[in-house]
Amino acid sequence: MSFDRLIKGIREKQNPTVAGLDPKLDYIPQYIKDEAFGQYGTTLEGAAEALYMFNQGLIDALCDIVPAVKPQAAYYEMYGWQGVRALERTIRYAKEKGMFVITDGKRNDIGSTMEAYGAAHLGTTKIVEESVQAFGADALTVNGYLGTDGVKPLLELCRNGDKGIFILVKTSNPSSGELQDRKLDDGLTVYRTMGNMCESWGSEAMGEEAYSSVGAVVGATYPEQLGELRKALPHTFFLVPGYGAQGGGAADVAPAFDENGLGAIINSSRGIMCAWKKEGCAPEDFAQAARREAIRMRDEIVSYIGKIK
Amino acid sequence: MSFDRLIKGIREKQNPTVAGLDPKLDYIPQYIKDEAFGQYGTTLEGAAEALYMFNQGLIDALCDIVPAVKPQAAYYEMYGWQGVRALERTIRYAKEKGMFVITDGKRNDIGSTMEAYGAAHLGTTKIVEESVQAFGADALTVNGYLGTDGVKPLLELCRNGDKGIFILVKTSNPSSGELQDRKLDDGLTVYRTMGNMCESWGSEAMGEEAYSSVGAVVGATYPEQLGELRKALPHTFFLVPGYGAQGGGAADVAPAFDENGLGAIINSSRGIMCAWKKEGCAPEDFAQAARREAIRMRDEIVSYIGKIK
Repeated sequence: MSFDRLIKGIREKQNPTVAGLDPKLDYIPQYIKDEAFGQYGTTLEGAAEALYMFNQGLIDALCDIVPAVKPQAAYYEMYGWQGVRALERTIRYAKEKGMFVITDGKRNDIGSTMEAYGAAHLGTTKIVEESVQAFGADALTVNGYLGTDGVKPLLELCRNGDKGIFILVKTSNPSSGELQDRKLDDGLTVYRTMGNMCESWGSEAMGEEAYSSVGAVVGATYPEQLGELRKALPHTFFLVPGYGAQGGGAADVAPAFDENGLGAIINSSRGIMCAWKKEGCAPEDFAQAARREAIRMRDEIVSYIGKIK
Repeated sequence: MSFDRLIKGIREKQNPTVAGLDPKLDYIPQYIKDEAFGQYGTTLEGAAEALYMFNQGLIDALCDIVPAVKPQAAYYEMYGWQGVRALERTIRYAKEKGMFVITDGKRNDIGSTMEAYGAAHLGTTKIVEESVQAFGADALTVNGYLGTDGVKPLLELCRNGDKGIFILVKTSNPSSGELQDRKLDDGLTVYRTMGNMCESWGSEAMGEEAYSSVGAVVGATYPEQLGELRKALPHTFFLVPGYGAQGGGAADVAPAFDENGLGAIINSSRGIMCAWKKEGCAPEDFAQAARREAIRMRDEIVSYIGKIK
């Protein structure tokens, strides 16, 4: 199961973090944009090339210390199919460098359409007799509003394709409570109910470690709920956004982990991508600044959770 | 507001239906695939070309009688960035032919990321000084699990960019009730609560017709809920999937309409795309078979709702 691979990477690198690759043009050093726009013009293709060059630099600087990357689909789609091609190239490059790739697409639909999303992002697409990989990530984020139908086609890819999914449970944004914190008539919150569904779906796709291939997205900005869910969902691995730019700190994410320092991976996007701006270092040093921030973040989190066993 | 445009098209064509463009390779006549694969091989590019050729034929045959098309993103993403390019070409072609285009992506995320999705699918992307259109649909389907943050950036595009969104309220799939039918502690169901949020969001983006730019997805497979929601949400325009292949009929969708025969647009995907297979006509006649089915569907629905005023 794919989260066994993710856990192996976390343990080997003693680093339970993932670098979010949401590369806005504003975050990219001018010299990279000059090169890309010089070659392709100030076009979608030029922007997509700049994104890819920036990502390559980040991946090169991070791949020996950070186990995973999480490209966010929206930041590629906004540059059209050319941007989506940069997403595909980024996934391929990160996998070549040994990183675990989580495509953050929050996809959701009815069963037959989720089969198509599964083929797109995790599996392969059949073309006559050939099985071709479209994007080929290791894991995908999924919105569970449609219930079991929208998850089941992906469980097959988890079990037999060494893939994983993360279902949105309690998201990191300020308004997440409008629906997610509401109590159902049995007294449980919507987020807790969704969490329980993750445990149930996951029971059909357990790994060799204590965790299933059905993870949950739980925001660092809600540490109390993180702790509640960690206790309630012993087999559900957490993807935790909201650290850094969104306001969550290391103390806030500590409740996401189990007694072995496992059970969660903490995402930082802007903190890592924009480290060169915050540091005020030379733009050419952007990747090393990202590495320095990744090390700082790793050390800060590990100081709370101890050695990962 | 963009649903004013959609309503104008529905009224002019006296047809409250939308053709879903979810072109599986299986649905595409062999002679089209032979041509596309002959040119590009049995590759993602070849498959994407076949998709686009098939869509062009359908759009040509439907554009004077059907007001809108709804390409479903998953069926393009499964063919990689090449498939996503076919999506972009399809949207552009349908708009050239005067059709209203709803991209069915069910996107959802935190506010900053929804800005990126909005730019991608509805608005424009800034590249240095240029504003470039990435996909440029007229409307986008959205999953509201994250609350107001995930909708607000799109309201701006509704108000000032002549765009619309459809929020998932009660979906057409069998397991949609697992969460959506649950009652909250105030006695309202989750789907009704989401519907009420649509009315509230929509109040910030009213059109000249009675409807706002914030619509709702409500499945034809749940006619009772369709009727309940039509009464409860007087300013919310419905996109209704589930007619035809998923089991909903014209009697089932009738409750989605108001007394003027407005307030809803009914989607058929497989029914229209695969009409040539069901008819058993010559494959070369696929587009005319789609037209015959679109006319049959229009007439069947209009026989229930009467003249659209």
